[in-house]
Amino acid sequence: MITVEEAAKIVLEQATGYGVEIVPFEQSLGRVLAEDIKADRDLPPYNRVTMDGIAISFEAIENGISTFRIKATQAAGDEPVDIEDHAECVEIMTGAMLPVSTDTVVRYEDLELRAGLATLVTNGIRKGQNIHYKGKDKKQDDLVAQTGAIVTPAIISLIASVGESELRVKKLPRVVILSSGNELVDVDQSPGPFQIRRSNNYTVRAVLKQHGLDAQLLHLPDDEEIIKKQLAICLENYDVIILSGGVSMGKFDHIPRALEALKVKQLFHNVKQRPGKPFWFGKHENGQLVFAFPGNPVATFMCLHRYFLPWLHKSVGAKEKPQLHAVLSNRVSFHFPLKYFLQVKLHYNEYCQLMATPVEGNGSGDFANLADTDAFMELPLEKNEFKRGEVFSVWPF
Amino acid sequence: MITVEEAAKIVLEQATGYGVEIVPFEQSLGRVLAEDIKADRDLPPYNRVTMDGIAISFEAIENGISTFRIKATQAAGDEPVDIEDHAECVEIMTGAMLPVSTDTVVRYEDLELRAGLATLVTNGIRKGQNIHYKGKDKKQDDLVAQTGAIVTPAIISLIASVGESELRVKKLPRVVILSSGNELVDVDQSPGPFQIRRSNNYTVRAVLKQHGLDAQLLHLPDDEEIIKKQLAICLENYDVIILSGGVSMGKFDHIPRALEALKVKQLFHNVKQRPGKPFWFGKHENGQLVFAFPGNPVATFMCLHRYFLPWLHKSVGAKEKPQLHAVLSNRVSFHFPLKYFLQVKLHYNEYCQLMATPVEGNGSGDFANLADTDAFMELPLEKNEFKRGEVFSVWPF
Repeated sequence: MITVEEAAKIVLEQATGYGVEIVPFEQSLGRVLAEDIKADRDLPPYNRVTMDGIAISFEAIENGISTFRIKATQAAGDEPVDIEDHAECVEIMTGAMLPVSTDTVVRYEDLELRAGLATLVTNGIRKGQNIHYKGKDKKQDDLVAQTGAIVTPAIISLIASVGESELRVKKLPRVVILSSGNELVDVDQSPGPFQIRRSNNYTVRAVLKQHGLDAQLLHLPDDEEIIKKQLAICLENYDVIILSGGVSMGKFDHIPRALEALKVKQLFHNVKQRPGKPFWFGKHENGQLVFAFPGNPVATFMCLHRYFLPWLHKSVGAKEKPQLHAVLSNRVSFHFPLKYFLQVKLHYNEYCQLMATPVEGNGSGDFANLADTDAFMELPLEKNEFKRGEVFSVWPF
Repeated sequence: MITVEEAAKIVLEQATGYGVEIVPFEQSLGRVLAEDIKADRDLPPYNRVTMDGIAISFEAIENGISTFRIKATQAAGDEPVDIEDHAECVEIMTGAMLPVSTDTVVRYEDLELRAGLATLVTNGIRKGQNIHYKGKDKKQDDLVAQTGAIVTPAIISLIASVGESELRVKKLPRVVILSSGNELVDVDQSPGPFQIRRSNNYTVRAVLKQHGLDAQLLHLPDDEEIIKKQLAICLENYDVIILSGGVSMGKFDHIPRALEALKVKQLFHNVKQRPGKPFWFGKHENGQLVFAFPGNPVATFMCLHRYFLPWLHKSVGAKEKPQLHAVLSNRVSFHFPLKYFLQVKLHYNEYCQLMATPVEGNGSGDFANLADTDAFMELPLEKNEFKRGEVFSVWPF
């Protein structure tokens, strides 16, 4: 049986790229950039007026002029209007290009306008005020967003500004989530007295959806022939198979045999952790991966966050995120030779410290409990007693 | 000019419900529950075997029996098989219903199976082991998820388990995002020398999408008649109009006049904040709201997080989230009678304290900068000097 760290290392070693695709920029939210985005011209592209008012030459003020003839009005998007005389001004709107014959903008609030004349009502005019200068944010060809960045709304804005209406993003792996077993019926069906409804597969799909990945679902009946056929089809059409349950020592677990027959090689089975000890991980000779999580829904949820998501993150080439840690707020004992993934609720204390409070559940199979928690706290294998105030890794969800 | 707190109060006072709709449970991720979800039967619904192995009566062990005749094999989903004699056992699989004549499950790892007999190879059998008892997680009719909860993957699992294939969630407001001005061209067009590309509208839409809301976009040309017609149509078809720019004192800003003519009443204009001072907020007599954010993209982004999202959150009846705070990591000065929204990068120090490091930008209009930050820190109006180590509210994005 291997440790959590060894298992995570083996899983991350299997991270691999799935290529690049071109998407309309609006569909790139949450995706990972596969190209550097550069400014196609300076940002802003011209000396941009930032207040409605008048554009003047500051020399006029130095020469004691305080009333200006309005030569013309220039809206945003209009060709700039130049003045020929310091006693002239241009009435100008936010977003307009500053005329080259002017260097200062006085906003309406500091003016009195009457009969084609604008008169200053303040002394506090500074040369160059109310102008956002050409190239102040970015110069042409400057990098505005980098390969490996996850596209956020702020990056969407930059992409739009520089005219990248389509862009290259990392392709996501094709994932299928398999459920199995005749005891499982679908959500809209009435389970018999010895049956329950499928739910694990939907939970996994929902987590993947939160990470931008649309996975397919497939249910396998307890029939060795059908399982083998379906798994063969899955290996052809998907990069990753996620199983919840179905890989154990049970007499009716046809899946391990079928995977072996289909040349999926076991990379490990059983990890020193609770929940999720029977986690099985394998790889087909053509590279397809099989994450076979234990049937216990909390174990599946935990393994998904601890192994699959970091693998996905690395596979799409996203920048590494720092590991989150929190302060344990209550004492915890755990006397098994396994690493314990404690369900916790996260909150901040008055010093802005991230605190983790254990949430008491009915053991590792209690999924009802999970809805009241925010994260797993990873308690080291080497210890059995975990004191209040100690700091450990957390995996939020 | 009102304060940020006054403005936020007025905006939140306008929070109102938009009704309820029924959606397939898989589409409810991120939505707010409009009904309590209860267990339709106990969870688990029967005494559920949690390991593959044999089911026995513990009395057998008390009577010194250590080898059992395998009477039958029971898979998950099968009708339970009862034993008639303590020397018998049932070979049983994970997920199966425990037969009433048995009370303990011994896993394969603790057994030797040969010729229809199962022999214990351990002494450590505990009565009742490897069973997840009926009703241990939830009793029938227990609440599994409550009105007002945001649907998470964990809640999806519970909803699936109790068979709610469709459920009632809070309706989202219909939102349209307007851009305006002849200086703006679309992303796939080449802007003229005095023009720039639209980007603010896409950014706003991306932020709303992150919060589950699909908004429409509409661009208004600088034409008073068209603007009035389009705004009238928007007021008929949407609950909320978001504007970025277009509401100012400028000669070409037809929007304020059009809004007034269409009976949208101003609730406030100008807030003591930077960026975003010229924020305008109004309401139609039929309840439609107009959030007119300043044209400066950083101001729009800030106002969206500080005013619109809390309003949305309250409108859909989601449980209130605690305000996030962080520790300022560098000294900041700000000498204007405005509340300053500082762009910061968030990180944790070794004590798990959430730290906010100011990110130097080129002033409030510098959107390029925003892609490198995580949050705004809200620096109080009453002070001008903000020391390292002081704690203030932050608005992450």
